[in-house]
Amino acid sequence: MDLRDYIRDVPNFPKPPILFRDITPLMGDAAAFGFAIDQLAERCAGMSPDVLVSVEARGFLLAAPLAYRMGKPLAPARKPGKLPAAAHRVAYALEYGEDALEIHADAIAAGQRALIVDDLLATGGTAAAAAALVGRCGGEVAGYAFLVELAGLRGRERLGGAAAVSLVEYP
Amino acid sequence: MDLRDYIRDVPNFPKPPILFRDITPLMGDAAAFGFAIDQLAERCAGMSPDVLVSVEARGFLLAAPLAYRMGKPLAPARKPGKLPAAAHRVAYALEYGEDALEIHADAIAAGQRALIVDDLLATGGTAAAAAALVGRCGGEVAGYAFLVELAGLRGRERLGGAAAVSLVEYP
Repeated sequence: MDLRDYIRDVPNFPKPPILFRDITPLMGDAAAFGFAIDQLAERCAGMSPDVLVSVEARGFLLAAPLAYRMGKPLAPARKPGKLPAAAHRVAYALEYGEDALEIHADAIAAGQRALIVDDLLATGGTAAAAAALVGRCGGEVAGYAFLVELAGLRGRERLGGAAAVSLVEYP
Repeated sequence: MDLRDYIRDVPNFPKPPILFRDITPLMGDAAAFGFAIDQLAERCAGMSPDVLVSVEARGFLLAAPLAYRMGKPLAPARKPGKLPAAAHRVAYALEYGEDALEIHADAIAAGQRALIVDDLLATGGTAAAAAALVGRCGGEVAGYAFLVELAGLRGRERLGGAAAVSLVEYP
């Protein structure tokens, strides 16, 4: 099964000249979706994570079934103000301006190995922020899992040499 | 297993006098999370859905693993401007002001039966908006699945008599 067949290219979204890689057709095909989750589980098993870290919001769509499939707990990383209990916050740069992510301080115990999951690896800024949150909790990064990787944006170089799996790679 | 043991009460979040029911401790326990997904799958099987509709963002955390577990496709319902392709939009009232949800127009085919999934049933406004989106696509509502139900807010009365499952009920 070629998962690329289930990813829709949408030109100029959210603005020109971005070519958006839309994963909703993949979610909309039960066989493709199941295959993607099973592939990620298989390829990430060797990272031996204790917990999965999921980046809001599209990352939840992959990380939650992956956590279920792998039998691991899930720690959501969310935009500021969404998590109700004591949380760590990390700011990170966007193309214009900046954004931030938070994680509950008790979501990862000291020394735990975290697998960071998101739908797409682009410049790596969000992934690096998630890794910083893991560090703030006293955990370590076991690796990264992405459905799609935009290799030309060289996000992998910001992952600190950790293992990183992606199922569909674009130039 | 009593799932209530894994839900954290946070007083005055996001503002007084709201008592927030935080599901992240449940996500953070792999056994409890797996049990919840399996219970929802078992109790919703009789609704015979063709597709699951998932409400952004916490709803994704339950709907995606439930779709994986049930072997069904997933249609995300998102805040305006997040979905890249042609979408239907439905506005709905909040306590103060209003909000809206969108769904890709091709996410549900005419006549398909949709199971609407969210983390929590409160007043039912979001669930009713998701049902309206299903209708705009030409589908029908097979039923609803929630992790938590705040029964005192009588959201069930807004679900049009459709089957609705919740795993943890508060008065």
